[in-house]
Amino acid sequence: MRKETVMHYPEPIAQLMESYMKLPGIGEKTAARLAFYTVNMQEEDVTRFAKSLISVKRDLQYCSVCGNMTQNDPCDICEDKNRDQSVILVVEHPKDVIAMEKMQDFKGLYHVLHGVLSPVEGTGPEDINIPVLIKRLQKDEVKEVIIATNATAEGEATAMYLSRLIKPAGIKVTRLAHGLSVGSDIEYADEVTLLKAVEGRREM
Amino acid sequence: MRKETVMHYPEPIAQLMESYMKLPGIGEKTAARLAFYTVNMQEEDVTRFAKSLISVKRDLQYCSVCGNMTQNDPCDICEDKNRDQSVILVVEHPKDVIAMEKMQDFKGLYHVLHGVLSPVEGTGPEDINIPVLIKRLQKDEVKEVIIATNATAEGEATAMYLSRLIKPAGIKVTRLAHGLSVGSDIEYADEVTLLKAVEGRREM
Repeated sequence: MRKETVMHYPEPIAQLMESYMKLPGIGEKTAARLAFYTVNMQEEDVTRFAKSLISVKRDLQYCSVCGNMTQNDPCDICEDKNRDQSVILVVEHPKDVIAMEKMQDFKGLYHVLHGVLSPVEGTGPEDINIPVLIKRLQKDEVKEVIIATNATAEGEATAMYLSRLIKPAGIKVTRLAHGLSVGSDIEYADEVTLLKAVEGRREM
Repeated sequence: MRKETVMHYPEPIAQLMESYMKLPGIGEKTAARLAFYTVNMQEEDVTRFAKSLISVKRDLQYCSVCGNMTQNDPCDICEDKNRDQSVILVVEHPKDVIAMEKMQDFKGLYHVLHGVLSPVEGTGPEDINIPVLIKRLQKDEVKEVIIATNATAEGEATAMYLSRLIKPAGIKVTRLAHGLSVGSDIEYADEVTLLKAVEGRREM
């Protein structure tokens, strides 16, 4: 049944509002503003918008090798023979790959877990992209696995789990450094970050 | 040319981000969040979203009588013979009609100007929906015009202009009351609102 909130709007506006309201962080007022804005947008822009919505569902898939989001399988990164095939950087989500690529410095390969281990939510190693990673490590000539899961409790636990799993195979396992952000003030750093910064201190 | 900011994203994501970024108040980070969220939405919801985008451009038009946004011309409100045909409430935008309809008390007709007079921006009476209003007043048996333009400088000027134009025809012209919001504190009211509240004080 139509929500009471959108019943006074013309039907096409109400429908578009309901779609906008399915997006995170968009409530009724914002949805109304966006819907009315859309009515006044260029026809061409709206058509392109609709097409790109369909396209992200139709044209994107997960790379069967690394699990990254891609148009081609295997993805361009896995197919790029100029990249260092001996290093795999493990991340939680496809957006983390994009963040790393923006840095334009890492030239190895990726592996996207699509989540983290979480006993509370019942997420075990089989529920995320770990089995495929293990197979990759058995087959490929990987010398180092860099674990770049987030610095949350689950991210740390996943890093620990992977480290224990991979190290016995004689592969070097490293973790991204945690510490103070570049340009940040010590007085504003949270305690955990500060602790990590002290733990990870380096001789100069 | 593709913006540098979205170049690291898979093409379909980048395109959808560019569409989201055309919406008001949505920057690159939010667009990325929305685009990735969209990838994980139900196929059905995304299809409906795309269809409703196309629909607002294709199925909505402006009522030739009142200028309101509608699927049918004339609109349902103009066609509703149970509404008081002798009162026309003049607003700036279609959303103002919806705000009035939500109140569920006003039972007259509407007229949507689609803007306000603005000498600065070169918007004269012919540029907004005023000529149609004048024709309506000559033809219909209208006894009162309620002017509900916003309480901005342009809104006030437009109200004043319409009042001077319509009054000589022997039609009553009124303006919505301005004053304190119901439930608001005097100490937080801005000075202009307070001034209007004092000016419009009523005997009790």
